[in-house]
Amino acid sequence: MTNTTYEQLGDLKRRSILGAIPAKWRLQNPIPQADELRDVTGAYIQQFLTPQEIEITETDAAGITEQTTSGSWTAVEVAEAFCHRAALAHQLDAKRLDAYFAEHKKPIGPLHGLPISLKDQFHVKGVETTMGYVGWIGTFQGKKDDPRRATFESELVKELRNLGAVLYCKTSVPATLMAGETVNNIISYTWNPKNRLLSSGGSSGGEGALIALKGSPGGFGTDIGGSIRIPAVFNGVFGIRPSSGRMPYEGAANSIDGQNMILSVVGPLATTARSLTLLFKTVLSQQPWYHDPLVLELPWRADVEERTRALIRKSADGSPSLAFAIMRHDGMVRPHPPIARAVEIVEQTLKRLGHKVTQNLKGQGGRVCVADGGADIAHHLGLSGEPKSLQCIVGEGIPHMSALEIAALNVEKRQYQKLYMDYWNSTAEITGTGRPVDGVICPCAPHAAVIPHKYAHVGYTAFVNLLDYTSVVFPVTQADKKVDVPEPKDDFLSEIDKIVHEQCEFSFFV
Amino acid sequence: MTNTTYEQLGDLKRRSILGAIPAKWRLQNPIPQADELRDVTGAYIQQFLTPQEIEITETDAAGITEQTTSGSWTAVEVAEAFCHRAALAHQLDAKRLDAYFAEHKKPIGPLHGLPISLKDQFHVKGVETTMGYVGWIGTFQGKKDDPRRATFESELVKELRNLGAVLYCKTSVPATLMAGETVNNIISYTWNPKNRLLSSGGSSGGEGALIALKGSPGGFGTDIGGSIRIPAVFNGVFGIRPSSGRMPYEGAANSIDGQNMILSVVGPLATTARSLTLLFKTVLSQQPWYHDPLVLELPWRADVEERTRALIRKSADGSPSLAFAIMRHDGMVRPHPPIARAVEIVEQTLKRLGHKVTQNLKGQGGRVCVADGGADIAHHLGLSGEPKSLQCIVGEGIPHMSALEIAALNVEKRQYQKLYMDYWNSTAEITGTGRPVDGVICPCAPHAAVIPHKYAHVGYTAFVNLLDYTSVVFPVTQADKKVDVPEPKDDFLSEIDKIVHEQCEFSFFV
Repeated sequence: MTNTTYEQLGDLKRRSILGAIPAKWRLQNPIPQADELRDVTGAYIQQFLTPQEIEITETDAAGITEQTTSGSWTAVEVAEAFCHRAALAHQLDAKRLDAYFAEHKKPIGPLHGLPISLKDQFHVKGVETTMGYVGWIGTFQGKKDDPRRATFESELVKELRNLGAVLYCKTSVPATLMAGETVNNIISYTWNPKNRLLSSGGSSGGEGALIALKGSPGGFGTDIGGSIRIPAVFNGVFGIRPSSGRMPYEGAANSIDGQNMILSVVGPLATTARSLTLLFKTVLSQQPWYHDPLVLELPWRADVEERTRALIRKSADGSPSLAFAIMRHDGMVRPHPPIARAVEIVEQTLKRLGHKVTQNLKGQGGRVCVADGGADIAHHLGLSGEPKSLQCIVGEGIPHMSALEIAALNVEKRQYQKLYMDYWNSTAEITGTGRPVDGVICPCAPHAAVIPHKYAHVGYTAFVNLLDYTSVVFPVTQADKKVDVPEPKDDFLSEIDKIVHEQCEFSFFV
Repeated sequence: MTNTTYEQLGDLKRRSILGAIPAKWRLQNPIPQADELRDVTGAYIQQFLTPQEIEITETDAAGITEQTTSGSWTAVEVAEAFCHRAALAHQLDAKRLDAYFAEHKKPIGPLHGLPISLKDQFHVKGVETTMGYVGWIGTFQGKKDDPRRATFESELVKELRNLGAVLYCKTSVPATLMAGETVNNIISYTWNPKNRLLSSGGSSGGEGALIALKGSPGGFGTDIGGSIRIPAVFNGVFGIRPSSGRMPYEGAANSIDGQNMILSVVGPLATTARSLTLLFKTVLSQQPWYHDPLVLELPWRADVEERTRALIRKSADGSPSLAFAIMRHDGMVRPHPPIARAVEIVEQTLKRLGHKVTQNLKGQGGRVCVADGGADIAHHLGLSGEPKSLQCIVGEGIPHMSALEIAALNVEKRQYQKLYMDYWNSTAEITGTGRPVDGVICPCAPHAAVIPHKYAHVGYTAFVNLLDYTSVVFPVTQADKKVDVPEPKDDFLSEIDKIVHEQCEFSFFV
């Protein structure tokens, strides 16, 4: 370590990852430059796949399990198709699953044969976790000679195995995890496969990009300020940030571990909404609360699901039974034209489906707070001497807080939660349903995917982490430079509003 | 404030509380000294009450609501009986409740007319909250001119009103709340009514003493290291410390507010177990999760209750279906003879009822950690210049922790929780029920009620707060100097074990 630079170490690791791809799956011809071919998610990637591989990999998680749990597709052919498409070689447990099915004539579990990708915070036996830090190569979370290295498994990983999932790849993250883009000194930058001049978002950017490419039907990311939702929205896939205490984080690596003012949470990303349901429900079926002290004893609530579906049907039958509020902007930064248009599309769609759209909810900007003054991040970067990326939102010279200051912030957070809860409850007076609004529609970021270094405002996602509400991202539309024409403006909500407005040309116009 | 001492201020407040007791209810003859008459819970207090008042006040919370919700007893007569017995004058909403019943022929709610006492952390309209601090007199939580003074109500208080409860008295606490006894410069020392030479415990000591005297059929305390359970066990009443996020704490005063490594929780104390169920269930029926951001959306689980009752019946029918572990000591301090005898009684009773008692669980000492170095406590004591009581377990010169140190402790706590969870799960191999043990029986303190200043070890209660498990206290027996003879010892588990052993003579022998 002393004589090797962090660049050399990162490079070695990157080449060893490439080396794991079988020769027959390596691309022979040069890949076109991003400015020649921005979108590689369609015909481009399909040319390297067989028709069956295309069929398999373009089926969503829920559809795949229909085939694998009934024995129509074997786990190996599904894993191979996804491994091929993801250009990753590990077929891991797939053969064991097929042997099980052949012998017992039934699936191991409801995710039998389903390939699942994992953000590189989850420990999988025999696989290294770097979490984007060069200093973690050859260690367990930066600790040399730790016996857990390559043997320890995170709780979620154990549960996915019990469910029959095939764990075949891990995906890139920004070192520190504290970034809205994904870049590190091992994999380098993770581009958006729909437009390779743009970012895939962060910090679960590897998940977002891989799932958009259909290199994975679904996977798990984490979110402390938007890290599931930003990659989901940038890549046009579905994602959910549950409240804390729902999905098992036990035994996963983390940044600033032990900070518990705002807890990072685990959640799935997938190509369809029903696949989010499948992944969420099946993980809960493992009763993670008996293995993770921070998970609540709260099974999937089929009654709530059924009640909600009944209200949706009632609305469709002409009796508006669900009510939504719209948050057009967060009070700090107005969204770019394609985002404003997407919100408008959702509003019109909800009305068309018979629901009520009752009011403009007031915006609530969040703020990012790193209480330890960046000490944890500095330690892990320091293991290899690599610099902090420009994308990391943890600044320099921030104060290291004391217990009394942290307590004061915790009180402030609780008061904010109470205020917002009372505000939400107060909408019961105007919905006409006898209940407050059932959900709030809001942008996930003020812009579509950005070019590198241009992620400037996490207010649209971070306020949800502060409130600790459930938040689901679904794709609505894509930026279209013929339609989404920015108009000159001079009334700005804030300095950051002005900066973001001036970035219009850098995002959906490239 | 500047010219008046904290002693004078505390004295004034104490006399104004006494002044609120109607003349007809004041005791005319001198009260016998504690060494002449230790126990005042029986014949002594009954002599001042009418037969009906005795009947009412000696009925438990569940029995009272049977009478008040059916119209057999009016809310006023029940409130008067308890007010008399508690020697407190406030009948508050009782008349409103009776008018409601007369008009609507039905109760306001399931706690219609039930008097409920509240630890002096809960804000009730028109009543002052001092939380034992002289500096809080005439203020809202130490803040002068705060408009919430005497107008603001805690969330739990609002819910109890909705349920029809009569809020008629608040009970004493130790200033700082960080003590296993109850003493402050307003009410002074709260003695144990069963033996007035001993402590009523703390910090919910006023609740424990009042409920033991049947001056209240039930009330609410709070617990961060044993503050519900210690008064419950010292006074021979029932109490429950639920996991955090179950009972609403919103809008209640607290000590070291915003410290969230270990959260203080709210829970009921009462004269019977079924009354704990009643109070817990009815508060949850108010859906506190819509009004307190820290409460989990987790209603009373009637299915779990029913399943457990079925297992109890099965055990009684000769097929052992519940399994318990016993923790005879916590690895740090061995309990005094009456406590060891109580544990033995429970073990034999469980066996007699047909349950399995499978193993001696390993002890787990807790430790107390005040991350802010006592800054919050020093501030509130400083408002009046009063000194910290000797009972306060927060010492001098303790370090004020940094964010990084707090994060490290949070990780350590989570690892301890995981270790204990895995340990608990591992008992599934020996119970024979297919499940791990269903509960652990352990002492609540190494001793019965102590004489002042002798509360030396919170390990038996604090480890539960660290784990964040549910813990229920039930009375088993009383110390008996003829039976509980301490034997000379010279093998001590720790220095504190020796100190506690030497205190035998100071507790159940007085």
